[in-house]
Amino acid sequence: MERELIIMDTAETAVQVRYAETDQMGVVYHANYLVWFELGRSALLDSLGLDYVQLEKEGLVSPVIKVEASFISPARYGEEVTIKTWVQSYDGLRVTYFYEVLVADRLCVTGSTVNICVRTEDFKPVSIRRRLPHWDQVYQRIKRDQS
Amino acid sequence: MERELIIMDTAETAVQVRYAETDQMGVVYHANYLVWFELGRSALLDSLGLDYVQLEKEGLVSPVIKVEASFISPARYGEEVTIKTWVQSYDGLRVTYFYEVLVADRLCVTGSTVNICVRTEDFKPVSIRRRLPHWDQVYQRIKRDQS
Amino acid sequence: MERELIIMDTAETAVQVRYAETDQMGVVYHANYLVWFELGRSALLDSLGLDYVQLEKEGLVSPVIKVEASFISPARYGEEVTIKTWVQSYDGLRVTYFYEVLVADRLCVTGSTVNICVRTEDFKPVSIRRRLPHWDQVYQRIKRDQS
Amino acid sequence: MERELIIMDTAETAVQVRYAETDQMGVVYHANYLVWFELGRSALLDSLGLDYVQLEKEGLVSPVIKVEASFISPARYGEEVTIKTWVQSYDGLRVTYFYEVLVADRLCVTGSTVNICVRTEDFKPVSIRRRLPHWDQVYQRIKRDQS
Repeated sequence: MERELIIMDTAETAVQVRYAETDQMGVVYHANYLVWFELGRSALLDSLGLDYVQLEKEGLVSPVIKVEASFISPARYGEEVTIKTWVQSYDGLRVTYFYEVLVADRLCVTGSTVNICVRTEDFKPVSIRRRLPHWDQVYQRIKRDQS
Repeated sequence: MERELIIMDTAETAVQVRYAETDQMGVVYHANYLVWFELGRSALLDSLGLDYVQLEKEGLVSPVIKVEASFISPARYGEEVTIKTWVQSYDGLRVTYFYEVLVADRLCVTGSTVNICVRTEDFKPVSIRRRLPHWDQVYQRIKRDQS
Repeated sequence: MERELIIMDTAETAVQVRYAETDQMGVVYHANYLVWFELGRSALLDSLGLDYVQLEKEGLVSPVIKVEASFISPARYGEEVTIKTWVQSYDGLRVTYFYEVLVADRLCVTGSTVNICVRTEDFKPVSIRRRLPHWDQVYQRIKRDQS
Repeated sequence: MERELIIMDTAETAVQVRYAETDQMGVVYHANYLVWFELGRSALLDSLGLDYVQLEKEGLVSPVIKVEASFISPARYGEEVTIKTWVQSYDGLRVTYFYEVLVADRLCVTGSTVNICVRTEDFKPVSIRRRLPHWDQVYQRIKRDQS
């Protein structure tokens, strides 16, 4: 039961490696995994019914304030990668997303980002809990660290 | 005399090839030359005293509406490229920039872009001649096709 | 009948606009359409059973030697674009691909690229007709200019 | 004296923000800071007389296996950023680089990468100490953690 909920709250996104994403090492250039993390994040928000485009229309944006990534095995052109994304922790202000990038069973990259919400006009942080109660409820429900 | 003026109205911009700009062919990925064209365009505007950041503050942006490029010889990581940029033609509405990308004497890429000015809010084109008389005067003076 | 063949030989590729692909104009940065052209080209090759990864294993790559694009209407984050790709002409050495990028019925960008085949080691052009007879047959069959 | 040595072993690289590097938040897209980290790393190697292009000719590449970054204040188009880069630690196999990205006195981003050396053909790690004794000597000398 628990497992099912966790599975439901993990987005799985399939992406074909683009030629433009490779570098002269013959593998995906490492910064592009951060772009893929964002694809995973978008897919997760979509699957949860959270509308990021609408958020921006309300004068808010959600920048990454911290990122960590470990590059374990390189992805290559011609491969299809899967990005698994879930919410690890959330404190009303900061959302910590975790990511696993795989090619079939091979784990390529793991990582996390911390995202906040800020006003577009001056990048002042806003409380998700107070300003976006619906987003708050969803994050509270799906975060894995329930402590 | 004419030659000198033309030299003055051509921006020369030096750029080191970035690792991120290569692809698995071992050369610069072709779409990145368009980014370099833009570096050349920016350098040309700067050298002419035209302030693009100010333009955007006034609610205007200057999108590319047409691009052409010929890829003659690839640039590689470790090389320094020079981008030569000038205004070929201008009709009060559209500016046609030309570009040459070289590594030392070797011509790598030639190309052109057509840029217009539009309102940021709705992308409606504006007349450079009427809305930006100072830019108009500069373009009139430096365009190579003086017919 | 003719129409059906043409439809069969046009790849239609759906792509979600990525946040990383936007710029501060609030629209897709123009150079990224060239990356999308490549996605269209890859999808077309796949649908025709032509294996580009295998081509590279044989010591060949297929660089773009010429590109043209007209930017008609900007695509934005949150939109799904469709890339239509077909082979316009082919002469045994050069393949000219055409592209249309649409958001629903709205035509955003049209363009073309000319691609050749070269040896990876020294970028010397090779004749597709002689070196890759299977590719040659497919291109002969599907090119729209049958003159 | 110590301070001077540290200053000498820190590369300072100036970069103009490119339009292509912005996103629709109106600031530099976060993944691009990793590209700038690499510019800093390249500048540091150059200043130390370590030739990365030559390294690749010898069949080696130096991938990033870990990255961390904190995004403190966004950089914007029209700004010039400075990237400060130094070697924090080194154990004969792994080099940890640190980075600070500033606009004038304003600290925008801090981060680190761990880089190793691998064989291009199969991405098997090699010992820098044994395979690249000259690089080893330089890293031993300049690393800040001298424990």
